[in-house]
Amino acid sequence: MADATCSFGVVGLGVMGSMLALNLAEKTGEKIAGFELDPSKAKAAEAKATKEGLGNAFKAFTDLGEFVKALTTPRRIVMLVPAGKPVDACLTALKPLLAKCDCVVDGGNEWYENTERRAAEFSALGLHYVGCGVSGGAEGARHGPSLMAGGPREAFDLLEPTLKKIAAQVDGPCLGYFGTGGAGNYVKMVHNGIEYGDMQLIGEAFLLLKNTQDEKGVSRTTSNTAKIFEQYNRGPLKSFLVEITAGLLTKRDDRSDAQLVDKVLDACGSKGTGKWTVQEFADKGVACGTVSAALEARYLSALVSQRRRFSSIATVGVHEDLSPRVPEGVLEDALVCAKICSYAQGLSLIRTTALEKGWACEPDSVLRCWQGGCIIRADLLKDFRKAFADEPELENLLMHPSIVTILNKDRIHAWREVVGIAVMRGLPVPALSASLAYYDSLRRPYLENAALIQAQRDCFGGHTYRRSDDPDKAHTTDWLA
Amino acid sequence: MADATCSFGVVGLGVMGSMLALNLAEKTGEKIAGFELDPSKAKAAEAKATKEGLGNAFKAFTDLGEFVKALTTPRRIVMLVPAGKPVDACLTALKPLLAKCDCVVDGGNEWYENTERRAAEFSALGLHYVGCGVSGGAEGARHGPSLMAGGPREAFDLLEPTLKKIAAQVDGPCLGYFGTGGAGNYVKMVHNGIEYGDMQLIGEAFLLLKNTQDEKGVSRTTSNTAKIFEQYNRGPLKSFLVEITAGLLTKRDDRSDAQLVDKVLDACGSKGTGKWTVQEFADKGVACGTVSAALEARYLSALVSQRRRFSSIATVGVHEDLSPRVPEGVLEDALVCAKICSYAQGLSLIRTTALEKGWACEPDSVLRCWQGGCIIRADLLKDFRKAFADEPELENLLMHPSIVTILNKDRIHAWREVVGIAVMRGLPVPALSASLAYYDSLRRPYLENAALIQAQRDCFGGHTYRRSDDPDKAHTTDWLA
Repeated sequence: MADATCSFGVVGLGVMGSMLALNLAEKTGEKIAGFELDPSKAKAAEAKATKEGLGNAFKAFTDLGEFVKALTTPRRIVMLVPAGKPVDACLTALKPLLAKCDCVVDGGNEWYENTERRAAEFSALGLHYVGCGVSGGAEGARHGPSLMAGGPREAFDLLEPTLKKIAAQVDGPCLGYFGTGGAGNYVKMVHNGIEYGDMQLIGEAFLLLKNTQDEKGVSRTTSNTAKIFEQYNRGPLKSFLVEITAGLLTKRDDRSDAQLVDKVLDACGSKGTGKWTVQEFADKGVACGTVSAALEARYLSALVSQRRRFSSIATVGVHEDLSPRVPEGVLEDALVCAKICSYAQGLSLIRTTALEKGWACEPDSVLRCWQGGCIIRADLLKDFRKAFADEPELENLLMHPSIVTILNKDRIHAWREVVGIAVMRGLPVPALSASLAYYDSLRRPYLENAALIQAQRDCFGGHTYRRSDDPDKAHTTDWLA
Repeated sequence: MADATCSFGVVGLGVMGSMLALNLAEKTGEKIAGFELDPSKAKAAEAKATKEGLGNAFKAFTDLGEFVKALTTPRRIVMLVPAGKPVDACLTALKPLLAKCDCVVDGGNEWYENTERRAAEFSALGLHYVGCGVSGGAEGARHGPSLMAGGPREAFDLLEPTLKKIAAQVDGPCLGYFGTGGAGNYVKMVHNGIEYGDMQLIGEAFLLLKNTQDEKGVSRTTSNTAKIFEQYNRGPLKSFLVEITAGLLTKRDDRSDAQLVDKVLDACGSKGTGKWTVQEFADKGVACGTVSAALEARYLSALVSQRRRFSSIATVGVHEDLSPRVPEGVLEDALVCAKICSYAQGLSLIRTTALEKGWACEPDSVLRCWQGGCIIRADLLKDFRKAFADEPELENLLMHPSIVTILNKDRIHAWREVVGIAVMRGLPVPALSASLAYYDSLRRPYLENAALIQAQRDCFGGHTYRRSDDPDKAHTTDWLA
């Protein structure tokens, strides 16, 4: 094995894979091997390495056998290929070439149960399999992503020294080990769910800013909104997503004298992790109004021609007596509240599933991992970490006194005002509304609707009910007798 | 086979099974066989039959072999056992006893893909397998349920003459054949999803009635609300669920001088079909805000102790300047609008999946099937049928001119008022809000939030975007350059 000179292998040299390979080459100072079936992509990756002065530290192979032979043992290979069948195809080709204790890492957005199935197959062969979410897009992969790992502990130990170096650094490396099986994929999936919620909230803020007036009764241009998001990014909303929003809103269109964003077709795509998160929330019995509202908003946006047709016949029924003014400070307060709900829902889901699966997903280590590199990094995470540091068993983020202090009377008042105006004026704000309904449901000691529904269920289906004054017993009644 | 005298068999003599067996015995005038492992349940079913004068028309077996032998061929057997493993166990025991062309019907709330798996196994053995949703609870099973069938056409032809007789009758039998495989289970699943939405909307109306004032500024008692629902049941909301709500709200508690509903613990249960519906919506890319809000409201209601704890520290931040008056007529208008959204979402999901699977789920036959027997039967279904009769390819119920006429300016105005007041006063109305967001999103020709989200996705992930003025091409931009 005279030619085994590379300390880490990367399979799949698309955008994410090639960027991660360069990150590895730069931060480890060791030689990195890449594999890519498509020779043009392999060449492009090598060219990029050369351009960045890392030509000697990176070699791309188009032959899988040669790629594997180039790796020192136990081999450490990270795959960045599309989830599902491509990963299975890749593993089928890789497996016969590996030796005991070699470790393969799936760095893609994979469904956690697929990872668990593959991990069992690997384990039976004496091989290691790790699912590791990588967040931060191309930029993050190149200079420091957030890394969320799950799998056999001994495999993680083998990887940790290297992953520590390539991860984003905020209060230490943004790298977490969250337990066996698909724990890493799961934390990444929920990260993406929160991302859906956060993006939709920012989107609704933009919609409101463009369709209401400032406190002086003046309408706003897109350029005005860019300045407002810039200002938001100096306050409690400071975050990657608000920062890039402020930036991209200033982008000029090169075909007109408009801002480019105003020329973008209002039809959102999605790639699966938001959908999975919503399905998991439903499966685990955890409420996720903000995230599901965000997913559905994307689905509804895609119905462009239906919407345009319906808009010409549907009545708005606006309440004209309500002022259309939404001062940016009021909106900022509403956003802070709703954003915290998106995180609270995601963290509740992780808590529920981790308890069920025996995973090590302490909120503090999840939040630390999200503090840098990833799409949902935000200043508020520091406050969230403090809450969990103070009360590690906290069931719901919203319920810590320090968070209640953030969700103070003035902010809640502002939140109601914003949603109220939107509702009265026909502006769709599903995520701001769903977050508020989440908050209001959680803070309500008695839910009349729930009592009535249990009575209905017992009435037509004999599903029984409990009594408030005798809650341990199932009762049934002939309600219509 | 001298002893094969029964024309139909029922496996599982719990509440639903025994009721359906009596219905079969009564309506066909033929002899019906029942099977039940538990001898006490078998005896109870026979006793019930005797009590209802059907003693000679029904025989219960506790031996599966004898049960099967008692059936004329080709045998027709309907199972009413819990979904999942119990059904599989039942089929494993049944299969060796059956002969070619025998037909087994699963009448439970089964996941449609389980039915498709079993149907394939049956087909390979020359047997027929049908998934048939049965709605209407015990009362419906006994006197006329809504029956939603899917499976091989020839098997349905074998069952149809009998099913026609036992189904509810409204404009003909409430019986539908919706295509191969799991089509019947699917339509029943969506029925239940709509039911979740409808029940939550009625629940929110009750919560609002109890926590706001009438137009004279007077608070309402539970007895007042019973009268209001009774009145609703004479208008456009006339339906089974509103009818039983009016009835059960009058039920007195026998341990106190309160109404019984006010003593019911406010924690909702659920049994899976609502969850499946939400997961299917997510999977098929269809928006279902009303249904998912209803599911989540049940989940949040179950967190009784968390809610009571949080209520003591969370601020309400109420807008005191807004009147807390919600006249019942205004609320009625809001309910009509929101209820239509719940149906529109469900029908959109059926349409999407039917197109994908090649099922025969014409909206008119689905709606006809739901007009009687089932939980979501409602007068509005007549209007919905007219809309689809006029335009069978209608993509979304909301968009037909006759429905737009129902969702008129006054009603939409009322809807906004109700949701606005709830939002301002801290009353959680997730389903009313989500329905309104659905309506407002669908009627909006340009969604600024969606354009911004596509720009964000392209900015951090290179996911590309389209331009409104050049929609067929994928563009990508360095947004922060």
